[in-house]
Amino acid sequence: MSLAVIGTLAYDSVETAHDSRENALGGSAMYCAVAAAPYSKPRLVGVVGGDFKEEHINLLRDRGICMDGLEQVDEGKTFRWGGRYEPDWNTRHTTYTDLNVLEDFDPKLPDAYRDSRFVFLANAHPAVQLKALEQVEAAAFSVADTMNLWIDIARPDLDALMQKVDGLILNDEEARMLTGENNLIRAAQRVLELGPKVVILKKGEHGAFIMGEGLHFSLPAYPVVEVVDPTGAGDCFAGGFMGYVASVGDASPETLKRAMLHGTVAASFCVQGFSVEEIANRGREDYDERFKDLQAIVTL
Amino acid sequence: MSLAVIGTLAYDSVETAHDSRENALGGSAMYCAVAAAPYSKPRLVGVVGGDFKEEHINLLRDRGICMDGLEQVDEGKTFRWGGRYEPDWNTRHTTYTDLNVLEDFDPKLPDAYRDSRFVFLANAHPAVQLKALEQVEAAAFSVADTMNLWIDIARPDLDALMQKVDGLILNDEEARMLTGENNLIRAAQRVLELGPKVVILKKGEHGAFIMGEGLHFSLPAYPVVEVVDPTGAGDCFAGGFMGYVASVGDASPETLKRAMLHGTVAASFCVQGFSVEEIANRGREDYDERFKDLQAIVTL
Repeated sequence: MSLAVIGTLAYDSVETAHDSRENALGGSAMYCAVAAAPYSKPRLVGVVGGDFKEEHINLLRDRGICMDGLEQVDEGKTFRWGGRYEPDWNTRHTTYTDLNVLEDFDPKLPDAYRDSRFVFLANAHPAVQLKALEQVEAAAFSVADTMNLWIDIARPDLDALMQKVDGLILNDEEARMLTGENNLIRAAQRVLELGPKVVILKKGEHGAFIMGEGLHFSLPAYPVVEVVDPTGAGDCFAGGFMGYVASVGDASPETLKRAMLHGTVAASFCVQGFSVEEIANRGREDYDERFKDLQAIVTL
Repeated sequence: MSLAVIGTLAYDSVETAHDSRENALGGSAMYCAVAAAPYSKPRLVGVVGGDFKEEHINLLRDRGICMDGLEQVDEGKTFRWGGRYEPDWNTRHTTYTDLNVLEDFDPKLPDAYRDSRFVFLANAHPAVQLKALEQVEAAAFSVADTMNLWIDIARPDLDALMQKVDGLILNDEEARMLTGENNLIRAAQRVLELGPKVVILKKGEHGAFIMGEGLHFSLPAYPVVEVVDPTGAGDCFAGGFMGYVASVGDASPETLKRAMLHGTVAASFCVQGFSVEEIANRGREDYDERFKDLQAIVTL
């Protein structure tokens, strides 16, 4: 079934201990849509500047992503972000953030998107996320991502959003910040009291778990031996997760548990290359093969 | 089948952010044997001083542990260790280490122990561990634990030990130190090149995995909401793991995978109390019940 993905597109400059990329394709919705594409044909909503390259629009369209919801502001510049990773991958330094056209991002869903049954609100200001969600007529299952910045400076908007979405996906640091609980199980329980019916908690290389009414499922990360660039891994996790859920067409506990493995697989492809260099070349067969590998590793 | 457990017994003084204990029962073999007891009747080998309390010997014996291999040096003092945990649990400061009778620990297995089919060499000097292992006539499956100190100061002895044991169990920090590999999958692969046929890598609150020929299984930790004292968790993991393996009587991949869950269960009981205050009160029914809970959390 239909999946709408709303969020950012960006040009990222990333430096690791081994290599670097300048102005590579990035952004929360971009990563999510690329990861979801093998499962569904995601409908992208985002904004870019006049500098956004035709080849990148084509790359996303060729992947099966509907680009009708991409707004291009000719006189503006695309959102740019720069980051550097420490050799252990655990510390990331943001070197710059140029919001550019993102500053006035006012998401407008094309009419054809309004019947989307599944909605993923990739990381963006919670007020923007809520505005996008309100344009969907009857979402069966909506999930939002967020980040420490919004927890810090836009908590009332985030609180309002949490009353409206079915699920919240966040990482360990964000969960602790949002709830004040250091223990992640307790933090997840607290998130459920704030509105969402399910919470997906990502722990990077240590895996992820999902909790909700009658639902608790935990799994380790896929064992990637050679990490190239972790940028976008969380967004790709969400993409694999939501893409699979949309492809099944329901959000039952069984579907959500399997979706956790598909998200894990997507994240593992993501970190094996800079930007979408690896994951954009992986199709459903690759996903299914790695799903089986992961299933073998976590199954008694 | 029979399980021999060789290692230390201690009196620990532990301080956490919430509470503390002075001279509480501790030591690698003590924790391991207590955790293994619901599965098998472990045969303990260790040394204590004249100050070791009768009530503690009785506690261990009442748990079903064979104490015939306990050497008591009347004129000596029991090994003592003191530690303090930071509020986040991730940092542990050793406040003191008094080896006492451990300094001259020369393990002697009672004759009745020599037919042990399963052997766990809990953390001790690798030369001591090897000496104990050599007294077992025909072990079907032997596993050794170690620590950063021995990797640092007794590497030749540890190398020799690794040629003799079937399995090595170690935590993430130790695996990185032993192999020089930061990536834990690669570190585990390197350990397998050093001798052991299987390696069990513990990641504390992030779970554990096991690797060997045709074997790779990974699982998250049991979600304990209220950690009281993590001391001994790794030893109890090993105890639950080896106790279960010994109770089944083989070390097939299927048994080892299930043993990882039993180890996880034992570790979770351990951290819910100081010393053995919690785990010593848990029987096989409690273990089996929590095994089912854990299985539900990790099963698709």
